Amino acid sequence: MTTSSIPQINVGLIGGGFMGKAHSLAYAAMPMFFWPAPAIPVRHTIAEVNEGLARTAAERFGFQNSTGDWRRVIEDPNIHVVDIATPNNSHAEIAIAAAQAGKHILCEKPLAPTVAEAKAMLGAVRRAGVVHMVAFNYRRTPAVALARKYIEEGRIGRVLSFRGTYLQDWSADPSGPLSWRFQKDIAGSGTLGDIGTHVVDLARYLVGEISAVNAMMHTYIHERPLQSGGADKLGASDKNASGPKGKVDVDDEVLTLLRFENGAVGSLEATRNAWGRNNYITFEIHGTEGTIFFNYERRDELQVFFNSDPADARGLRTVYTGPAHPYGEGLWPIPALGIGYGETKIIEAYDFFRAVTEGTAVRPNFEDGYKTELIADAIVRSAQQRREVEVEPVTV
Amino acid sequence: MTTSSIPQINVGLIGGGFMGKAHSLAYAAMPMFFWPAPAIPVRHTIAEVNEGLARTAAERFGFQNSTGDWRRVIEDPNIHVVDIATPNNSHAEIAIAAAQAGKHILCEKPLAPTVAEAKAMLGAVRRAGVVHMVAFNYRRTPAVALARKYIEEGRIGRVLSFRGTYLQDWSADPSGPLSWRFQKDIAGSGTLGDIGTHVVDLARYLVGEISAVNAMMHTYIHERPLQSGGADKLGASDKNASGPKGKVDVDDEVLTLLRFENGAVGSLEATRNAWGRNNYITFEIHGTEGTIFFNYERRDELQVFFNSDPADARGLRTVYTGPAHPYGEGLWPIPALGIGYGETKIIEAYDFFRAVTEGTAVRPNFEDGYKTELIADAIVRSAQQRREVEVEPVTV
Amino acid sequence: MTTSSIPQINVGLIGGGFMGKAHSLAYAAMPMFFWPAPAIPVRHTIAEVNEGLARTAAERFGFQNSTGDWRRVIEDPNIHVVDIATPNNSHAEIAIAAAQAGKHILCEKPLAPTVAEAKAMLGAVRRAGVVHMVAFNYRRTPAVALARKYIEEGRIGRVLSFRGTYLQDWSADPSGPLSWRFQKDIAGSGTLGDIGTHVVDLARYLVGEISAVNAMMHTYIHERPLQSGGADKLGASDKNASGPKGKVDVDDEVLTLLRFENGAVGSLEATRNAWGRNNYITFEIHGTEGTIFFNYERRDELQVFFNSDPADARGLRTVYTGPAHPYGEGLWPIPALGIGYGETKIIEAYDFFRAVTEGTAVRPNFEDGYKTELIADAIVRSAQQRREVEVEPVTV
Amino acid sequence: MTTSSIPQINVGLIGGGFMGKAHSLAYAAMPMFFWPAPAIPVRHTIAEVNEGLARTAAERFGFQNSTGDWRRVIEDPNIHVVDIATPNNSHAEIAIAAAQAGKHILCEKPLAPTVAEAKAMLGAVRRAGVVHMVAFNYRRTPAVALARKYIEEGRIGRVLSFRGTYLQDWSADPSGPLSWRFQKDIAGSGTLGDIGTHVVDLARYLVGEISAVNAMMHTYIHERPLQSGGADKLGASDKNASGPKGKVDVDDEVLTLLRFENGAVGSLEATRNAWGRNNYITFEIHGTEGTIFFNYERRDELQVFFNSDPADARGLRTVYTGPAHPYGEGLWPIPALGIGYGETKIIEAYDFFRAVTEGTAVRPNFEDGYKTELIADAIVRSAQQRREVEVEPVTV
Repeated sequence: MTTSSIPQINVGLIGGGFMGKAHSLAYAAMPMFFWPAPAIPVRHTIAEVNEGLARTAAERFGFQNSTGDWRRVIEDPNIHVVDIATPNNSHAEIAIAAAQAGKHILCEKPLAPTVAEAKAMLGAVRRAGVVHMVAFNYRRTPAVALARKYIEEGRIGRVLSFRGTYLQDWSADPSGPLSWRFQKDIAGSGTLGDIGTHVVDLARYLVGEISAVNAMMHTYIHERPLQSGGADKLGASDKNASGPKGKVDVDDEVLTLLRFENGAVGSLEATRNAWGRNNYITFEIHGTEGTIFFNYERRDELQVFFNSDPADARGLRTVYTGPAHPYGEGLWPIPALGIGYGETKIIEAYDFFRAVTEGTAVRPNFEDGYKTELIADAIVRSAQQRREVEVEPVTV
Repeated sequence: MTTSSIPQINVGLIGGGFMGKAHSLAYAAMPMFFWPAPAIPVRHTIAEVNEGLARTAAERFGFQNSTGDWRRVIEDPNIHVVDIATPNNSHAEIAIAAAQAGKHILCEKPLAPTVAEAKAMLGAVRRAGVVHMVAFNYRRTPAVALARKYIEEGRIGRVLSFRGTYLQDWSADPSGPLSWRFQKDIAGSGTLGDIGTHVVDLARYLVGEISAVNAMMHTYIHERPLQSGGADKLGASDKNASGPKGKVDVDDEVLTLLRFENGAVGSLEATRNAWGRNNYITFEIHGTEGTIFFNYERRDELQVFFNSDPADARGLRTVYTGPAHPYGEGLWPIPALGIGYGETKIIEAYDFFRAVTEGTAVRPNFEDGYKTELIADAIVRSAQQRREVEVEPVTV
Repeated sequence: MTTSSIPQINVGLIGGGFMGKAHSLAYAAMPMFFWPAPAIPVRHTIAEVNEGLARTAAERFGFQNSTGDWRRVIEDPNIHVVDIATPNNSHAEIAIAAAQAGKHILCEKPLAPTVAEAKAMLGAVRRAGVVHMVAFNYRRTPAVALARKYIEEGRIGRVLSFRGTYLQDWSADPSGPLSWRFQKDIAGSGTLGDIGTHVVDLARYLVGEISAVNAMMHTYIHERPLQSGGADKLGASDKNASGPKGKVDVDDEVLTLLRFENGAVGSLEATRNAWGRNNYITFEIHGTEGTIFFNYERRDELQVFFNSDPADARGLRTVYTGPAHPYGEGLWPIPALGIGYGETKIIEAYDFFRAVTEGTAVRPNFEDGYKTELIADAIVRSAQQRREVEVEPVTV
Repeated sequence: MTTSSIPQINVGLIGGGFMGKAHSLAYAAMPMFFWPAPAIPVRHTIAEVNEGLARTAAERFGFQNSTGDWRRVIEDPNIHVVDIATPNNSHAEIAIAAAQAGKHILCEKPLAPTVAEAKAMLGAVRRAGVVHMVAFNYRRTPAVALARKYIEEGRIGRVLSFRGTYLQDWSADPSGPLSWRFQKDIAGSGTLGDIGTHVVDLARYLVGEISAVNAMMHTYIHERPLQSGGADKLGASDKNASGPKGKVDVDDEVLTLLRFENGAVGSLEATRNAWGRNNYITFEIHGTEGTIFFNYERRDELQVFFNSDPADARGLRTVYTGPAHPYGEGLWPIPALGIGYGETKIIEAYDFFRAVTEGTAVRPNFEDGYKTELIADAIVRSAQQRREVEVEPVTV
């Protein structure tokens, strides 16, 4: 019964896990929030590892069709957008196939477990001329977008330094199972790729390109119980904890200093072994005229200090994002009604579909994802060599 | 292509404003979060004040049909659930008609602007035997449900006192327009009905029945610019601020002491004139063995103190709700990914549809809504008489 | 070896408990902080209940002389200032004698356990023409003085409402002993006089005179173990907890609404039964142009919101007091080095000695102490009568 | 009139600036707080750069005698303790002379601007057999001592990582004058020695010896107005800001990774150019069984997480230090009355005089100060070489 001129765009989603859920929510909710919407995403087909799982996922996530073979999504000429929400080591194969089929692509992060794959993916989407985005969704937190706005408008002056963290605790328990996230051949790296790259993305978004790093990496728990089932339940103790164990070959902690091209300096800490920290993505940015602090666990808020305030009334103020801030008109009518994880994905979908239908640029794209891999690669080399190393240049 | 045994339930939604958006999101998202879902809500028909608005709302919110006359929803035999998301003074007429038509009803809060209407609504749903719920959604914040769990399990002992607030600032600007929320004949009351009743509902949910109140009510801004358009944009300055003004005849602030049937005491403050407070719903509960504190602006968190902790390690701890807490298995896989406003409505829908399909009881229902009106009525009388007054009993 | 013109003022201190310690610290430290000092307080004589205790107190607190009879202090012509730091029921007798002897007086709070005594004390100091001060020291927290400055300068506009709390937990344990603080004949009242009056003083200081109150008072724990020793160790469990018990005849909790002469409204909660709250003196003040929030547990900080801030950067800012704020030049060289309890008493001494040597007015004085008793009296009557009652006028 | 057996110890204080004030307060207050006191410190003689300043300092800080020549203090046989509160480049000369004269020594931090001087100082006090302490006072914050207690008792398990910061903003304004703190020949280094060494001390105190570092250092503001007067007013804009400028040859920011001997890793950031951070000394320590977080700006509080808490009630708890915690019996009777900067120095004096009179060991001593210089030296070399370097061993 659609009578408006808003285009309907058919989406094929590959992967029905936690990320599949988040993306499905975004497709359903985006036009509810941003209206007139750039497009009405149609949940056309969902792919899972077998037909049964796919059928259930379709009912749960509101898709019209399901398939046990992701190649059916690529081959379907009615599908305009391919959304890749699978483990890291399958991103490249799927994305390159989708690009060759002319699909626009939204790919979960990190882009790929290796620099080589990320580079190949960027080459593929460039050759195909399709829209491409990598889902570093935390850029889309309204408070993070507000931080970027303040910086771009010069309101904290020139950036001097950046300190970022991403701390979780779901892997602090040694009885947690050896899921794919602890296996280098699937995940590529551990904490670094899983969550550290989110901070790298935020640093690049807010401060600029990173030229060199100086890092330490550490594994705290060297073996874990072999997993009884296939699920990726973060942090749950495995029922087979007393059974056989397998080797963890990825990092539990990464610490690095950062040198930016524009002269700023900084640091980054990421670990999933920080008891009591849940999704503790924080950054503090010092500028010549002010300071910004953000903590995702209190993501409705951005703290900002302006040195131009009156001498007797200067302090970090806590701004609750709402209609007066980036994306606010589309979200909730007053601040603090509540930004959840879903909203970051709804905004991501909004920007992605604007790019698809309006031809606008969208970031972070596969080039950003590739650059992040180059930085992650430099961090690994630096930690091995115990010295500062430069980030390799883009060569696509 | 549904193959499972999960029932599809057709919903008719009346009202396409902010609340229509929130409810539509809940219908789309509920099965994505809670799986197997008690039902798949089908967005069947949406009603707005005219056909054009209704058609746009249908496209935006994903409804199959639209109508400019809410009675079409009531009359449609294919619709099982009527969802009332209109201004307060229309709730009774719609709800009573829906009950007579045998529809299950989800009604926005406050139930009605007068005690008499609330009573009539309760009578109607009781006679019809339908499922009924009033949308005091803040009960569904996981941290609030966790507070209730702690109290029920005796973990803070016997409750001694309750202090609740609901503070906003969108009406602090005197150039904000004279919307229906400032008009007694539509809204019934001002701050009290709009937001104060949410705290009353939380007090009843967490502590128990309120037997007497002792209140002050105050209007700070006595006239406001007549509204140029029909929209209910909270807090926006009106472009016609220099034009003609109309009289505000509702309260801007309500303060009351509370006496509970179980012997506990307490207080409540609600105002929409508190600069810098956005959706500052807080409660602090002192028990014989501990304390609970909650602030909705940081709704992922519940603070709790147990006097049984070791003497050198006692303090309010900040619990981030997640899979280990009420509703957590259905929400996000780790704490602090983020509970937003949407999640409270998604959980509300989940509990409502469980009641519809499984025959379980659901609270808060129309009796709760009616009791809340009796308490609001006592607050008004107490403020007029400047003395403690008892809450009238339920007489349905 | 003093060569400057700064006068030395001899102080006689009566009472060597917790308050004696705090005042002794203030006398020693005041010139170190505020220089040139208005006076050098000389710790001349300390009185305790017997000669032995007095001698130890003199050595500990740095006094030149000691006595087991407080009348010796009053009679000594070399003593200029009498400092009363004894239980409440002895304040009147000592203060009236000191006034008659022409001493300037600093008296601990509350001024007296009854209105009649407070009135007599005010009469006595007025007749004697001496400087008098009541030690509601929390006014002297720099952040509180800053709040007052903001309000006086109109920076949050006209005050609309005030919400104050004073929560502690040292009496939450029913095995805590029946000290004098739980006995009406010594303390006058319980929570109300002990800590509630501090909030009354802050409300008067920040907002203005209180014209009417509407209160509830409650006793949670009705009997306690008889005390084994004489000490006033707040909150410690008594070793004789299993022995005989005595009756508590004072309030554990007071809740009241407030009506101010200038039209503002407010509320106050005080209890010593709030687990996890230690010295939780808070106030929130809403004005037509902004909001102020203070929590003594984080006393270096004042939170303030100005509605004149840019639309995209409005929020409660956290101001750390320092050299740019009231009393800051005399305290520490940068903010957040740390304001402790001692600093509030050092500032109190500074203002008191300025009044003594420079003839400036000092507040809060005995009239303030008397007014606070009139308000406390109204709170008691209101709670008994369950209605709003007006505060009696000053009749000295 | 002292009749007890508590010894009186004569103190000679060299330096009457901010630190002279803090130490004088500590000498006056220590017996008031800790009773029976290990000693009664007698403020015997204060030395300043000339007789006039010294005389004023004596009156202000309560010393019996004054001198314009610090050597008079060393030579006075009646003085038992020499307290060095002068700029960094004079510490070695004074301390070595005092040691040779057999005085016990309390020396402000950092111990000396160079490793060589620090080493000579340690040699001197060892040869003399006197008690020696370096005033890294933040160890004496009760919450920091509580953190140490938790770690020693194994309550957060084995330490995995440490993240420390010391952020201030008093040098962020480029019009602040070129005080001695910006001159390498007097201060030795900038941020690193001034505040970074405090974090190094805390890291060693809480986690253990540091074996290697990997650092960046940065100067943000390369020249500043020549100073008009001699005072060390932190952060004040100079009135001569438009006049001639001089070169800053010290660091404004230091960032370093840390490798501990026990296998833990960590990082440290220190800068005085962080707008809005005042005395932001923080540390977060992750252990195998819990987490600790501390922020000196809220120094009454320690946050701690224990993974042994019930699954539905785990979170960082905020412990307010009081009588149940280290040093608490001597401080204030309930938590949150307020720990200020003074209390850290009062406790420092308490531990120092215990060592002097009871022969107990005291830390941090000159060996700790020397080790801290070795670490600072390694940080400088690492930043120059852009690689990890090992800390040199102690060679006294």
